[in-house]
Amino acid sequence: MYRTHTCGELRTDHVGQTVVISGWVQHIRDFGGTTFIDLRDRYGITQLVFDMETNKDLCESARKLGREYVITATGLVRERSNKNKNIATGEIEMEVLGLKILNPSQIPPFTIETETDGGEELRMKYRYLDLRRNPLQQNVMLRHRMALEIRKFLSDVDFLEIETPYLIRSTPEGARDFIVPSRMNENQFYALPQSPQTYKQLLMVSGFDRYFQIVRCFRDEDLRADRQPEFTQIDCEMSFVEREDVLVMFEKLTCHLLKTIRNVDLPPFMRMPYSDAISLYGSDKPDIRFGMQINDISEQAKNKGFVVFDNADRVLALVVEGAAEYTRKQIDDLTDWVKRPQIGGSGLIWVKYAADGTTKSSVDKFFSANDLKDWKTKCHASDGDLMLIVAGAEKNIFSIAGELRLELGSRQGLRNPDHFAPLWVVDFPLLEWDDEAKRFFAMHHPFTSPVVDDIEMLLTDPGKVRANAYDLVINGVEIGGGSIRIHDRVLQMQMFKALGFSDEEATAQFGFLLGAFEFGAPPHGGIAFGFDRFVAMMAGQNNIREFIAFPKNNSGRDVMADAPSTVSSQQLDELNIKLISR
Amino acid sequence: MYRTHTCGELRTDHVGQTVVISGWVQHIRDFGGTTFIDLRDRYGITQLVFDMETNKDLCESARKLGREYVITATGLVRERSNKNKNIATGEIEMEVLGLKILNPSQIPPFTIETETDGGEELRMKYRYLDLRRNPLQQNVMLRHRMALEIRKFLSDVDFLEIETPYLIRSTPEGARDFIVPSRMNENQFYALPQSPQTYKQLLMVSGFDRYFQIVRCFRDEDLRADRQPEFTQIDCEMSFVEREDVLVMFEKLTCHLLKTIRNVDLPPFMRMPYSDAISLYGSDKPDIRFGMQINDISEQAKNKGFVVFDNADRVLALVVEGAAEYTRKQIDDLTDWVKRPQIGGSGLIWVKYAADGTTKSSVDKFFSANDLKDWKTKCHASDGDLMLIVAGAEKNIFSIAGELRLELGSRQGLRNPDHFAPLWVVDFPLLEWDDEAKRFFAMHHPFTSPVVDDIEMLLTDPGKVRANAYDLVINGVEIGGGSIRIHDRVLQMQMFKALGFSDEEATAQFGFLLGAFEFGAPPHGGIAFGFDRFVAMMAGQNNIREFIAFPKNNSGRDVMADAPSTVSSQQLDELNIKLISR
Repeated sequence: MYRTHTCGELRTDHVGQTVVISGWVQHIRDFGGTTFIDLRDRYGITQLVFDMETNKDLCESARKLGREYVITATGLVRERSNKNKNIATGEIEMEVLGLKILNPSQIPPFTIETETDGGEELRMKYRYLDLRRNPLQQNVMLRHRMALEIRKFLSDVDFLEIETPYLIRSTPEGARDFIVPSRMNENQFYALPQSPQTYKQLLMVSGFDRYFQIVRCFRDEDLRADRQPEFTQIDCEMSFVEREDVLVMFEKLTCHLLKTIRNVDLPPFMRMPYSDAISLYGSDKPDIRFGMQINDISEQAKNKGFVVFDNADRVLALVVEGAAEYTRKQIDDLTDWVKRPQIGGSGLIWVKYAADGTTKSSVDKFFSANDLKDWKTKCHASDGDLMLIVAGAEKNIFSIAGELRLELGSRQGLRNPDHFAPLWVVDFPLLEWDDEAKRFFAMHHPFTSPVVDDIEMLLTDPGKVRANAYDLVINGVEIGGGSIRIHDRVLQMQMFKALGFSDEEATAQFGFLLGAFEFGAPPHGGIAFGFDRFVAMMAGQNNIREFIAFPKNNSGRDVMADAPSTVSSQQLDELNIKLISR
Repeated sequence: MYRTHTCGELRTDHVGQTVVISGWVQHIRDFGGTTFIDLRDRYGITQLVFDMETNKDLCESARKLGREYVITATGLVRERSNKNKNIATGEIEMEVLGLKILNPSQIPPFTIETETDGGEELRMKYRYLDLRRNPLQQNVMLRHRMALEIRKFLSDVDFLEIETPYLIRSTPEGARDFIVPSRMNENQFYALPQSPQTYKQLLMVSGFDRYFQIVRCFRDEDLRADRQPEFTQIDCEMSFVEREDVLVMFEKLTCHLLKTIRNVDLPPFMRMPYSDAISLYGSDKPDIRFGMQINDISEQAKNKGFVVFDNADRVLALVVEGAAEYTRKQIDDLTDWVKRPQIGGSGLIWVKYAADGTTKSSVDKFFSANDLKDWKTKCHASDGDLMLIVAGAEKNIFSIAGELRLELGSRQGLRNPDHFAPLWVVDFPLLEWDDEAKRFFAMHHPFTSPVVDDIEMLLTDPGKVRANAYDLVINGVEIGGGSIRIHDRVLQMQMFKALGFSDEEATAQFGFLLGAFEFGAPPHGGIAFGFDRFVAMMAGQNNIREFIAFPKNNSGRDVMADAPSTVSSQQLDELNIKLISR
């Protein structure tokens, strides 16, 4: 028998009992006559005591143990004289009577502590050791709890979890597919799903009414820090619903999770049109934990002879409350920050509205005190505030202002990770024009329904059509997104036409879905949440890799298992494929 | 608004209320003055009534509807004069005041009824319509309920659901991998997991103690009726356990599921050694819903001059209780059955011990009345019983007798699908000799621990070593299987050696797991259940395709979506692969 109790279980109630526990050696502390070992498992840490006087041999064996050895200890639970209030088992210790080494350990390449000395490369290679560290154990447990709560909540309101296939048909629309050669169907390939989108729509056609699935999805894209080639989605779909039905349902789910997991009560979620999100926050995923909205002062600032403003499409101002005392260095630093290629700003104009009522700016040469006062009024600034201004082309100046706003929010300490500010962004454009491909692409996907009032523009002025789509944004992170879908074959064909598909191409690629629409498809809509990101957000963190047990690096590699790898020529022969070297 | 209630919700309590419901037209019945429509959704069926006298226009619109049209009906709930006790809403009907067609439907290619007129091909092609039928809706809902119950049960006893990667490293040991070309890592491939085996073992090394996952697995094997290229597994692993700890835990889970889902109380599960399963039932997955054990009468039947028996390694007898009255035709039929190539028997000898005490057999020429009496005694047969005897080579005669036993069980009505008879089969051989490859293969997988007492035979007499492995069998179906794993690097290397791996090969393929064993791997073991089969078994059925929303056919094709398919040359170019035609 390996244990009667876990390392997190013993309390003063157990004093006097002989128990058996197993775990990993966390620390060994040797005080001459006595040796202490902290024994660790997932549930906690228990202090083992070995005494030279009462049991010399055992104590000497204990001293020979190393960190991360796996042992079983039998002993007597006794009350500690020196209690440790920081751990749940801190009132007791075990006087060890028997000791067995289950497995020795080499010295780990980094310390198994909350703050480790290992770099990211090393920790990824020895992921199984990194996962022993408390922060990662907590993250994995949080993920488990969230998944279970989501399943319980959705099941309680009649959603069915239905598994959809992983080996599906490749479709060129959207991101790049991972493909899987089929041995039994020569020269044909499956694709791994980018999402179960068409299958969940078919489930609505089948009448399942409410579907969800926590499901892996795959995209063969060049990776950024927060992207993984495989990621997990909470995928949901409902029949006989309008937009508000979906928003209300998933607002409830989100509130339930925040309450259950973090004990946070959320306010009702605002619905913000996409156009407002862009003009006020410079982003389709505004962080509304703080105000500092973007002010368009083009009217007040252009055509006054300052060429930077005059040549710009827009002049946008941010007001940083109480920051009139920012130093020259702080402002220079921000100017450099705005000019970084990732941001793409051309510079930063500042106006300080000092607490004493005086005003000073970097454009005093070009604008009168009255001009600066006009800006102050327009932007509802107060004495003591700092105004920062960016100007540029319509196309990207809002996103520059939005990035600057976020940076200022961070620098001013306005983005508290324990504060949660959710909202729905709605009324996205249905289509985006692609200059290179010279055609429209679906901003969401080709199955998104237009807003009813805009349908007639679909063939006349497609760029103006709003989508019946919505994103859930919390703290500036897009947690989920979805839409009411098209359920009418004629409208779906119009949509494909707007995307530049011929009827034949549309039928060849999506024939089975179009076919399904002819047999009584109900109105339906849904949403998908990025689960990795949702879990990270719930912990107030950004790096999703810390919330995935075995993540890939930025080249899509699992450096622990060394995947991907070469395969045998026999494997390739059976699949009728040949490698090409470039 | 599409509905205030579902089609399964209205009762006499709602009489007098104006409600809105939406769903599919199941039947239209026209009685001159009145038209009835059964409106269907996932939750039930509600009867709509249209009256020519009170609302002619509406009634005429209703008559123009077709089967499977999707409609919204507004109306008044009233009590039925003619109640239908067979459905939950049978006491009420809706007097329709408003009707809206949400989507028309073509005439479906087969009837959407419990017993449909559609053949399997057609139903697979229009799977989204087949899924509307009640039996499939029930199967999908059963699957959902089981998955949720499993998750709740395991979470309540401290198991964590942890997601493992789908894009992993290909290993040649075991079945054939599906592989996925990597675009970012030229000429390298991921593999789709045949199971998360190594990852769950690493999670034990990480100290997660109790892990589970309901997870998709992939095997590129030639398909049989009950195999799918992708299938779902309930994958579990525990640390600091011995065999009995695992069996007790998952016996509890199984009992919980049978009780919750089917209200069946299971008896304690027998542990049957593999050797008994083979000798008594001719199968490593015995159906113990009925007795009819195999009797070895070699001693009593050989060397009496009957060449069929004399040339056989073994002579095996089955006693069919009360079947002495089987006709000549019935026995001929069974003889033909045994000779089918799938079974491989050479023939069937019979002895009838008639109720009146007389005995008759097909080998009266070769055996005396005393001989037949000896057999009767040996097999505990009684007057009125039929004895059927097969003889043949050691290698396959037990499986022939086992197949015959199952067939007789079916013909005698001894295999009640509502009766559940579980058992654990234990002490499997660790290794199987492969005549073709001229080496041993792991019967389970290379990470299975030998029974402790047998370890020393691993390098001297590997074929004799028993595995510390176990299968859960219910009603002759293998529902799950697992083992205590090797957690010691030295023993693992011995195992690889017994399998014919050089040290270099073992390290190249499983280096990361072997490495993990050097940093304090705990003793651990686990189990994996075939979820598709488990759900089917729970419904008393065999065909797993009826329990998978979107299954593949025997060529691994999704005939609905027409996958796999060809992909574009651009996709292949990006992956640096080229097709070969054979």
